[in-house]
Amino acid sequence: MDKKRPTIAIDMDGVIADTVSNFIQWYERDYGVRVELEAFEGKPEAEGLPDNTVRRYVLTPGFFRSVPVMEGAKEAVLELSEKFEIYIVSAAMEFPQSLFEKYEWLREHFPYISWKNIIFCGDKSIIGTDYMIDDHVRNLDVCKGKTLMFTAGHNAGVDHHKRVNNWKEVIAFLKEEAL
Amino acid sequence: MDKKRPTIAIDMDGVIADTVSNFIQWYERDYGVRVELEAFEGKPEAEGLPDNTVRRYVLTPGFFRSVPVMEGAKEAVLELSEKFEIYIVSAAMEFPQSLFEKYEWLREHFPYISWKNIIFCGDKSIIGTDYMIDDHVRNLDVCKGKTLMFTAGHNAGVDHHKRVNNWKEVIAFLKEEAL
Repeated sequence: MDKKRPTIAIDMDGVIADTVSNFIQWYERDYGVRVELEAFEGKPEAEGLPDNTVRRYVLTPGFFRSVPVMEGAKEAVLELSEKFEIYIVSAAMEFPQSLFEKYEWLREHFPYISWKNIIFCGDKSIIGTDYMIDDHVRNLDVCKGKTLMFTAGHNAGVDHHKRVNNWKEVIAFLKEEAL
Repeated sequence: MDKKRPTIAIDMDGVIADTVSNFIQWYERDYGVRVELEAFEGKPEAEGLPDNTVRRYVLTPGFFRSVPVMEGAKEAVLELSEKFEIYIVSAAMEFPQSLFEKYEWLREHFPYISWKNIIFCGDKSIIGTDYMIDDHVRNLDVCKGKTLMFTAGHNAGVDHHKRVNNWKEVIAFLKEEAL
């Protein structure tokens, strides 16, 4: 029998899904104003758009279904799946109306990920993978495995997790680990 | 700070949700025939009703929303939540249309369980709780913690997990453990 492959929990929003781009796109569509990416820097994501609009959008049907894929994520996750057992783990339970949308989004953009490897949860503390790639410090802090913090505006300045700025850096780091 | 409480992953179908009763009720409603519980004994659950009807029902909108609560489950889970951190973990991803129904079902029948403690997944092997209560051997076999097998027709004859026949037996066993 083959040695069991190491497992990775990969987050959706802010990691394989470019949620902030969708906030900016929807806001421009609805209000005719182009918010710069810098507006999300150094503060909670919910404060990136004026007037609580982020909160309103995440509760709007269709928002999560229309999020673009993060640059480089499709190819990188496929490459990682050769060496690692990949789990997509999204803390989606706060927005239960998004669950089916997120499932459909994964089927469209990551069809090679089996439904067996998808997890929707609230709190990630009981996820027992060897690695976790996430943008939220609250998820990484409770992870028992090795953590990779995917750069996002809200985690600027955090330095107690290994930072990765893009999918190329993820691949470079994990290739070393899997040798 | 308090010592961290032990964690339990509790399954939905066949454990807190009496799914087999709903199969029997729906079949009687649709075909006028009362199937006995014994029809589910000693075989995969999908073969409990004639003509692949189980498979059809689990894909029918409204099925999971209308499942009755397992006898004694509400009171028992509430009692356990005093000593344990409770997670509801359902391998629901095979039937993604059921995700929101299952969330609503939990809100109705177990309103004291926070959305933070709900997990919908495919394969339970990455769930890292101290205990797992489940009726399916495939889930218990990959659990790293202590396992409790809730009696169901399909697990008749299995004897490599601690068997519990009802919620009274769960409470009796776990009270000893948590002393």
